[in-house]
Amino acid sequence: MKKTPNTWFVLWFTGLSGAGKTTSADAVFQKLKDMWYEHIDRLDGDIVRESLTKDLGFTKADRDLNIARVSFVAEILSRNGVGVLSTFVSPYTQARQNLRDKCTNYIEVFVNAPLAECEKRDVKGLYQKARDGIIPNFTGISDPYEAPENPEIELRTDLETVEESAQKVIDYLFENNYLSK
Amino acid sequence: MKKTPNTWFVLWFTGLSGAGKTTSADAVFQKLKDMWYEHIDRLDGDIVRESLTKDLGFTKADRDLNIARVSFVAEILSRNGVGVLSTFVSPYTQARQNLRDKCTNYIEVFVNAPLAECEKRDVKGLYQKARDGIIPNFTGISDPYEAPENPEIELRTDLETVEESAQKVIDYLFENNYLSK
Repeated sequence: MKKTPNTWFVLWFTGLSGAGKTTSADAVFQKLKDMWYEHIDRLDGDIVRESLTKDLGFTKADRDLNIARVSFVAEILSRNGVGVLSTFVSPYTQARQNLRDKCTNYIEVFVNAPLAECEKRDVKGLYQKARDGIIPNFTGISDPYEAPENPEIELRTDLETVEESAQKVIDYLFENNYLSK
Repeated sequence: MKKTPNTWFVLWFTGLSGAGKTTSADAVFQKLKDMWYEHIDRLDGDIVRESLTKDLGFTKADRDLNIARVSFVAEILSRNGVGVLSTFVSPYTQARQNLRDKCTNYIEVFVNAPLAECEKRDVKGLYQKARDGIIPNFTGISDPYEAPENPEIELRTDLETVEESAQKVIDYLFENNYLSK
């Protein structure tokens, strides 16, 4: 039997490149699908940057614009009852605060892994390029990451399995009545 | 009793400035709301240009980018079961063809009124500014409008009342099984 969430929400996964934002969000998304939830969707930094924000770079001004455009999409989805799982580095506190102000039921998920761990993983080879100066404005290396101070959920992807991290998010959704048994 | 459409759709209202795109779409939207339909939303050129595409002007390249960004939003809404009513001048055949290719259940609504009639209405005073050369790249005056050749629906806002135009769209939605009695 297909189900929809009790109410819309914007799950906002923020964290360093390589911290596990996409992996965690995909796992949560899959769990929701396995429970037959529909009217949920994913917004991912890499994908959005290929279309909606192809013109933007990684300076602070461009990053802020990137998030502002995405928040337009997240807000319109959530006001139509679509639960959104968004994965963006989103390093600036103010930009995330703007999202919180704009989107009803904004749930911040801090995908936390130490920089050294993310750099060691270096799944896309980006840290090496940043260290070599090939990629400028790289969060954690040549650009700041302002860690969330009061996220609704914190995932420690260096200490938890993907399954454990995803379950934490699902538990939060049930405990806060976004989903019902 | 709240209802949702049988299936998502993208109603795309195209036409000259002043042809009555926003008025017609708002009237259709209100009729749907009066019938208790939910999961429908509006995307309007003027509003989108204040947020999602604030950086863009009215050259052909910028217009194409404007529509491309909007199509990203329309597509994600429609794949989540949200019926979208979009109102954009969208003067270029190719840009509209791209929308048709990308969006499932794309329904083109040609909001047709003769240029002379639109210019006479000149609700926003834009035609006068275009004639005076204050606004460049103005569709119908200094930029082309490529009229749809095979729109699903054509509204003749110079010959029909707003009520009649809106009812035409509603009738189409019922006849093509997007809505059920």
